[in-house]
Amino acid sequence: MSSDALAELSAQLPGDALLVGADAVEAYRRDRALDPTAGVPLAVALPRTTAEVQAVVRWAAAHGIPIVPRGAGTGLSGGASAVDGGIVLSTERMRDLRIDRTTRTATVQPGLLNAELKAAAAAEGLWYPPDPASYEICSIGGNIATNAGGLCCVKYGVTVDYVLGLEVVLADGRALRLGGPLIKDVAGLSLTKLFVGSEGTLGVITEITLRLLPAAPAPRIVAAWFASIEAAAAAIAEISTTIRPSLLEYMDRTCIDAVEDLLGRGLDRDAAALVLGGSDDLDPDGRDVAFMIDAFRRHGACEVAETGRAEGEALAAARRAAIPAVERRGRLLLSDVGVPLPRLGDLIAGVDAISRDREVTIAMLAHAGDGNTHPLVVFDPTDAVAAERAELAYGEIMSLAISLGGTISGEHGVGRMKRPWLREQIGDDALEIAERIKLALDPDGILNPGAIFEAR
Amino acid sequence: MSSDALAELSAQLPGDALLVGADAVEAYRRDRALDPTAGVPLAVALPRTTAEVQAVVRWAAAHGIPIVPRGAGTGLSGGASAVDGGIVLSTERMRDLRIDRTTRTATVQPGLLNAELKAAAAAEGLWYPPDPASYEICSIGGNIATNAGGLCCVKYGVTVDYVLGLEVVLADGRALRLGGPLIKDVAGLSLTKLFVGSEGTLGVITEITLRLLPAAPAPRIVAAWFASIEAAAAAIAEISTTIRPSLLEYMDRTCIDAVEDLLGRGLDRDAAALVLGGSDDLDPDGRDVAFMIDAFRRHGACEVAETGRAEGEALAAARRAAIPAVERRGRLLLSDVGVPLPRLGDLIAGVDAISRDREVTIAMLAHAGDGNTHPLVVFDPTDAVAAERAELAYGEIMSLAISLGGTISGEHGVGRMKRPWLREQIGDDALEIAERIKLALDPDGILNPGAIFEAR
Ligand SMILES: Cc1cc2nc3c(=O)[nH]c(=O)nc-3n(C[C@H](O)[C@H](O)[C@H](O)COP(=O)(O)OP(=O)(O)OC[C@H]3O[C@@H](n4cnc5c(N)ncnc54)[C@H](O)[C@@H]3O)c2cc1C
Ligand SMILES: Cc1cc2nc3c(=O)[nH]c(=O)nc-3n(C[C@H](O)[C@H](O)[C@H](O)COP(=O)(O)OP(=O)(O)OC[C@H]3O[C@@H](n4cnc5c(N)ncnc54)[C@H](O)[C@@H]3O)c2cc1C
Repeated sequence: MSSDALAELSAQLPGDALLVGADAVEAYRRDRALDPTAGVPLAVALPRTTAEVQAVVRWAAAHGIPIVPRGAGTGLSGGASAVDGGIVLSTERMRDLRIDRTTRTATVQPGLLNAELKAAAAAEGLWYPPDPASYEICSIGGNIATNAGGLCCVKYGVTVDYVLGLEVVLADGRALRLGGPLIKDVAGLSLTKLFVGSEGTLGVITEITLRLLPAAPAPRIVAAWFASIEAAAAAIAEISTTIRPSLLEYMDRTCIDAVEDLLGRGLDRDAAALVLGGSDDLDPDGRDVAFMIDAFRRHGACEVAETGRAEGEALAAARRAAIPAVERRGRLLLSDVGVPLPRLGDLIAGVDAISRDREVTIAMLAHAGDGNTHPLVVFDPTDAVAAERAELAYGEIMSLAISLGGTISGEHGVGRMKRPWLREQIGDDALEIAERIKLALDPDGILNPGAIFEAR
Repeated sequence: MSSDALAELSAQLPGDALLVGADAVEAYRRDRALDPTAGVPLAVALPRTTAEVQAVVRWAAAHGIPIVPRGAGTGLSGGASAVDGGIVLSTERMRDLRIDRTTRTATVQPGLLNAELKAAAAAEGLWYPPDPASYEICSIGGNIATNAGGLCCVKYGVTVDYVLGLEVVLADGRALRLGGPLIKDVAGLSLTKLFVGSEGTLGVITEITLRLLPAAPAPRIVAAWFASIEAAAAAIAEISTTIRPSLLEYMDRTCIDAVEDLLGRGLDRDAAALVLGGSDDLDPDGRDVAFMIDAFRRHGACEVAETGRAEGEALAAARRAAIPAVERRGRLLLSDVGVPLPRLGDLIAGVDAISRDREVTIAMLAHAGDGNTHPLVVFDPTDAVAAERAELAYGEIMSLAISLGGTISGEHGVGRMKRPWLREQIGDDALEIAERIKLALDPDGILNPGAIFEAR
């Protein structure tokens, strides 16, 4: 790569929109997975407009240079790991937002943070449901690219359910427009839904039209403390296949401890697990709340109580703090495995067994009502033996989930870190069909090579 | 095509699974759109198992013979029109059903009728929401292939929102398995969602795993009669962008008249339009019901009342009977156009203008809360001049919807009848990208040629 080529790109962008040099690019080499194999990019582009994104992509296509799209870098699968000699295309300056009350939609640039959209919608009495625990620090573009989930998704669905329209810059630099502020549209193949969750491998998302809802009532929240993780899992499986909670979250003792160290909220460090159940329907008889309380008790919870509103919010915030809290204990390998609901107990017990066998700490938290868990393998990165055991445990967790009919990723995406297990889960045929689509849309393989698919 | 080849296919299927001869195939030449250009198939295959579907597809691939997948033939876009010299593959004998309470899912063969699934789920206290007005006569496979909508979809989403897993027989005869009874799964590209709505052009769907919900409470229904279609449209736009009704349906005087002739329910033939609004939340104060009543009144409804339960169900049934009722008035060209909600009034008024200009009757009904309308162009097929005017009106309705930022199909699919307008809506780039995907998955173009894409 000649510096001439870079000068050519630089000439097409505003003065400060291209970062070059080892120091400047360092902060853009890794996402929150801290992928140890992340490369060193040639430069970081910081476009503000679709036209500037197109300029970057056209230039990269002409020179055969790979592009790694990047939102806020909170990803947990190495989907935004930089590639040696490539360009990181960060959307951090693309933050325009327009709310249209007459269609009850928001049209945003991808770099807008999820929390910024939520706040703007709330100011209009509206609600954007998807709420990854990282909502204050992750971008909408990253949410679209990973099809992010969150806490309320057990009732309100995941990101894809809110995407009505997209603008995507394709591998050849064309800007493709799909859908719009229309609720139903089945004309042609569902390209919009194909781009959602494609982790930057099929195009760079430059604009998104999202469906909003009227603000939901505040949920009533029940907190249940368990002495056994199996009992907690059994209660969750019963609740999630009987009623429709608006929240059903789980965290184990390791998470409770870590959060308590960080926030000091007075959580019960003796409990094996905390389960939070929420219901936001308008039932004056509170039947779902009563059902949850009863189910928690029947399955042996030591303590069950409906919380006050402030306490419920504090507990949900404690749950959202679990990943950052556990991050203070060491380096993490973050799993994101999901299973059919009746297998949740087997997954939790199986992860526990892996933790014992491999002698590694594995903290467990979960969007439990979706069967989607986050086993966090904690290790000391300066201890090579421990790191190797952690790696093995990380892989075994994925194989375990697959053997239980589950998935290696419920919401974080495959990225680079989970790619070696993708074939084991989806099989040769599905991978081959996905590869045909990748090849059809990005024949030269310049878009996020190594994420989902092996780099060509 | 030699009769040897057909004998070869016949040898691979059970004795009665292949229909040949003009009389036997006649009933399989057209779906409910009565496509006048439908061809005469070589044979109709009636497989019972995935393996039999694979045998048909492998045979067709080997001989380069096109296959038209067919569910119950209630489609309204000519998606299941037979192709000269091709095979119609009907799923009518593939009706197995398994409900799993522990995962709250149903796994079904594609030929099962929507109503059969609903009934089986209800027997377990569960609910399969998607409810096309044709639910008693359409198949789940057809629903998946078209991403069918329905009455409750304004609140509960469309078919794709319930599809967790698929088995699809690809153009080369392989059976691809995607997903399963898992609520969240983002591992790899969203192939499941790509196959939903693909109208038989990418594969034959042979098994489906669907998410079920707990039974929803019966809705409270408000009926509003309007003297002006514009006033009705304005009320609908306000309601659908303010609250979350569980039902918001519209029918105009032509529909009311036709239904009244068919069913004699005592509908008000003098009204310009009937709007049904439903709310199924558990709010003891009935705020949404009160809001709807108030909105209908403010927008000038002549008569507004909350119905009793039986009356509400009867009115919903009357709405569902609108298409069959209008079918008695002549041949139909069924549009399925949708627009952003604030343009609903413009669409309804514009269709009215087309009806006057072209001197054709156009009955109007709508899943109004989704902005999805069904203008039914009625004509006498023996009158060539009238038929030509109807054709023109049919096209003008689609162009009108596109000009209002809308879609040529909200839920029925493009099929063969709307294909000429697809490019005008989605544009050259989206069509070209969709064609690349079609080519990648069905390189020889044997799957439903002429539907969505031009036959190669
Ligand atoms: C504490 C914490 C809690 C979390 N909780 C959740 C949770 O509850 N649910 C959940 O789903 N995730 C969660 N995450 C993971 C992460 O926040 C999400 O995956 C989020 O969607 C990533 O957004 P981002 O802007 O940070 O994307 P990045 O990390 O920058 O990128 C993620 C992927 O998207 C691609 N990408 C980003 N922007 C674009 C674009 N405009 N066009 C094309 N591709 C693009 C990247 O190439 C990469 O593959 C959590 C993370 C943390 C640190
Ligand atoms: C009175 C009436 C009311 C209606 N109301 C609605 C409504 O409210 N909402 C709505 O969405 N639709 C409605 N429809 C349209 C129609 O019922 C739906 O499109 C339905 O989903 C079609 O199902 P089917 O089994 O009849 O499919 P068919 O008509 O047999 O086929 C439809 C399409 O799906 C393909 N296909 C069918 N099965 C498979 C398979 N197993 N694998 C791959 N491709 C397949 C066919 O090739 C064709 O392209 C209505 C129709 C009528 C007659």
